[in-house]
Amino acid sequence: MNRRNMIQGAMATAAALSAAGAFAAVPDRNLKALKKAVDAGFDDAIRRIQEWIKLPTIAAEKLNIEEGADYFAKLATDAGFGKVRKVPTGGSPAVFGVLDAGAKRTIGLYFMYDVKQYDASEWTSPPLEGQLFDHPLGRALRGRGAINHKGPEGTFLATLHAFKAAGVKLPVNLVLLAEGEEEIGSPNFHNALNDAEVLASMQRADAVFMPTNLQEPGGDIAICLGAKGIIECELICSGERWGRGPSRDTHSGGKAYIDSPVWHLVDALHSLVRDGGNTPAIDGWFEHVRPLTQRELDLIAEQARTSSEKEAMEAAGVKRWIDDMSWQKSIEQGAAQPTVNIEGMIAGYTGVGGKTILPAKASAKLDMRLVPDMTARDCMAKLRAHLDKRGFGDIEIKFGGAYDPTATAENSNLIRAERATLQRLGVSHSVLPRIAGSYPGYIFTGEPLRKPFNQFGLGHGGRAHAPDEYYLIESNTTKVAGLREVQMGFVEFLYELGSMRS
Amino acid sequence: MNRRNMIQGAMATAAALSAAGAFAAVPDRNLKALKKAVDAGFDDAIRRIQEWIKLPTIAAEKLNIEEGADYFAKLATDAGFGKVRKVPTGGSPAVFGVLDAGAKRTIGLYFMYDVKQYDASEWTSPPLEGQLFDHPLGRALRGRGAINHKGPEGTFLATLHAFKAAGVKLPVNLVLLAEGEEEIGSPNFHNALNDAEVLASMQRADAVFMPTNLQEPGGDIAICLGAKGIIECELICSGERWGRGPSRDTHSGGKAYIDSPVWHLVDALHSLVRDGGNTPAIDGWFEHVRPLTQRELDLIAEQARTSSEKEAMEAAGVKRWIDDMSWQKSIEQGAAQPTVNIEGMIAGYTGVGGKTILPAKASAKLDMRLVPDMTARDCMAKLRAHLDKRGFGDIEIKFGGAYDPTATAENSNLIRAERATLQRLGVSHSVLPRIAGSYPGYIFTGEPLRKPFNQFGLGHGGRAHAPDEYYLIESNTTKVAGLREVQMGFVEFLYELGSMRS
Repeated sequence: MNRRNMIQGAMATAAALSAAGAFAAVPDRNLKALKKAVDAGFDDAIRRIQEWIKLPTIAAEKLNIEEGADYFAKLATDAGFGKVRKVPTGGSPAVFGVLDAGAKRTIGLYFMYDVKQYDASEWTSPPLEGQLFDHPLGRALRGRGAINHKGPEGTFLATLHAFKAAGVKLPVNLVLLAEGEEEIGSPNFHNALNDAEVLASMQRADAVFMPTNLQEPGGDIAICLGAKGIIECELICSGERWGRGPSRDTHSGGKAYIDSPVWHLVDALHSLVRDGGNTPAIDGWFEHVRPLTQRELDLIAEQARTSSEKEAMEAAGVKRWIDDMSWQKSIEQGAAQPTVNIEGMIAGYTGVGGKTILPAKASAKLDMRLVPDMTARDCMAKLRAHLDKRGFGDIEIKFGGAYDPTATAENSNLIRAERATLQRLGVSHSVLPRIAGSYPGYIFTGEPLRKPFNQFGLGHGGRAHAPDEYYLIESNTTKVAGLREVQMGFVEFLYELGSMRS
Repeated sequence: MNRRNMIQGAMATAAALSAAGAFAAVPDRNLKALKKAVDAGFDDAIRRIQEWIKLPTIAAEKLNIEEGADYFAKLATDAGFGKVRKVPTGGSPAVFGVLDAGAKRTIGLYFMYDVKQYDASEWTSPPLEGQLFDHPLGRALRGRGAINHKGPEGTFLATLHAFKAAGVKLPVNLVLLAEGEEEIGSPNFHNALNDAEVLASMQRADAVFMPTNLQEPGGDIAICLGAKGIIECELICSGERWGRGPSRDTHSGGKAYIDSPVWHLVDALHSLVRDGGNTPAIDGWFEHVRPLTQRELDLIAEQARTSSEKEAMEAAGVKRWIDDMSWQKSIEQGAAQPTVNIEGMIAGYTGVGGKTILPAKASAKLDMRLVPDMTARDCMAKLRAHLDKRGFGDIEIKFGGAYDPTATAENSNLIRAERATLQRLGVSHSVLPRIAGSYPGYIFTGEPLRKPFNQFGLGHGGRAHAPDEYYLIESNTTKVAGLREVQMGFVEFLYELGSMRS
């Protein structure tokens, strides 16, 4: 058997599992009863995810903030959490709850109840319906939040329902902390730790994780030790604020003697990068960048050997990487390269045909990914200073969410438990020093908590932030987990966490 | 009396005119009867302009093309033109007509029946209603096309109605050629000359002019000897076409190893200019630029002395010119400086807050103004070559309208007739070598016609292409003409044209 086989097969029935002897060494894991409860709860689990998808909380649009928090609080309560309540943060409230199983160990859970914006016209089926459809890997659920993150979170909650239904004691105590502004960069989530009960409860945790679906279409999992930090902001240039150019759109004939706020913005943007936008050129940007260690480079080389470049390219919708770099190099860049990206920009007339105006205003939305040991605070100051120094002091920077990179040690209890779980289940996996994306893990890995933290879970989905986001519900391959196998993965993981040594 | 006085006063009544003796030397000018007819037709003239405004022809949106051409054909017929018909051009039809008065001289008329796009939400009153309102200079009409160009064109047609009503023979024959794509750069208008009758009729003309309202709020008029050429185009960069970057919007974490079509476009745009967008930097762009002659510089110096910088700044909505240049220098630049302007640009996410995507596509709409002896054809090729040479061969250029600069000699019969008219009416005026804007005068000044051509007329209006476009109907000052005085100005001009020597 190679490393990529048999997740589903291994978990097909408790009898099969037992016959295979895979879990014979751990007689106190009530896998049979739990598997039965997971199977019995299958339809309810799907329905709960679909119902949740119907209520999108979108922080950027201030949509369903309190409604979404209340809805999630009810989901948590139904799954067995006690003391569930909303915690003020200054922005969307956090949701807190505890599930005391009388176990030796306590594990923290990080959830998000918000989702990314969507444009329904770009979707194959309505993004809030959570329709089931035929995906090459099996039956999948399509909807906003399917993979990011209502699908995997709902699946974890379904696992807790299964423990309850089976009458099996949870092997760990749980402390839940969910936020509603992940998609705008978690600008206020850290304030939840100002709540004494929340802080004390989280401090009791041995580690913190977020349920997710990590399996590639081939079944492989990359365990990530960290993520990049991020700064989101909008650069706005206007004639009004600049004191040059027009205060309202004017006839473009005036370009001969009137400054253009649009060109001023293009100039400013252009100064932020070199290499066609592929290398940040903001003054001092690389000052605190820590290069990858040899161990990190080795892990990435292993990751490149065991993962599919073709699948990654298809998932991203690209035919080649920057400079036609190798697959291994692209993973290295994903881990090590700070980025300055334009999310969007707009100015003047954008309708059909042309309109001979000199626009009074232009703006661009940026996101900038940070690697250790860059900090968001330092980089925000550097961006402002860079623009000021070059005659762009008039350009307004509206900062959105911003947070530091996050990192968890490879030899921490959390990572060891994850590896043990995947090894037990026969799931091919590698360890990735850092993903190219961001999540606010610094909340848990930074001061004051300093806990191991990452995302973990079997299963597959895709197109996060994009149209036709999906989550695999019933897999037609033995290599990739469906909803029920994902739950059995969480079962194994919770047992592993419960038995780990500090 | 200084140079700026008494347009209205001088024309207040025929008796007053006669008493002042201003026109005593030209007994065959039936000013008295014509003034009476103009006064009697005042309400009808306003109503016709208002009705015309209700039917906007917008070529960029393919709105009311045939309807607008038919409507204008009827307006022309009602005003006395014969043989009125639509002439195919490959785009919006031209409208052609002749008015043979049995006169010695024939004058060509260039009209446009299309208007610029508008956003009704930005207007003080509905842009298609042509409401009358109180302007600092008197009663004015607000609507799309008020000044550009239904107002002055409607006023010229009202003048023809007045000749008819007064039973006075027109002093010149007229050949009318109107187009419906002026606001998209007249991409097809030249094809109207492929019609043998149109060509032959236009060839009989001694000169061609377009009715317009040239008076500044202070009453001054700048007679323009020419205008810049223009190229409108859209630059489109997509991952699909580039073969780099994503073919659909992808997660922005990928910026570390995925090229960005948005940065690619920013890079390309940045290469087109220097000095913050104020100087074109396209290879060879200045090759055929002819510097201003000493006579042209002298005319501009005179224009600067006799016109108001403050009014020009207010009209454009600016507080200072590029590099804080002088008023005189800004007029020189308006005449002599080729420009590359961004009309608008758009990419990726432009909604509330942020969205961490790497967009698959970006585009920018440009207009480029050309001076003699640049040609549109040569410059279009230069833009393409410039981009190709710098690694932007993938960027698509969608050309819209494009045409050459236009120029008419200061000592031509047309300009001499204009100066004589203004002198006779005591209107302060100067001669401007070239305006900063564009109109397709090359159709008449270029091959095969090679006629003198410009825009001419008393009266005042403003905010062309912008919200709250207006046209002064009843002036409360003696310095600026209202609708009736504008008509009397056309009367004088037609007599002057009729008596001019070649």
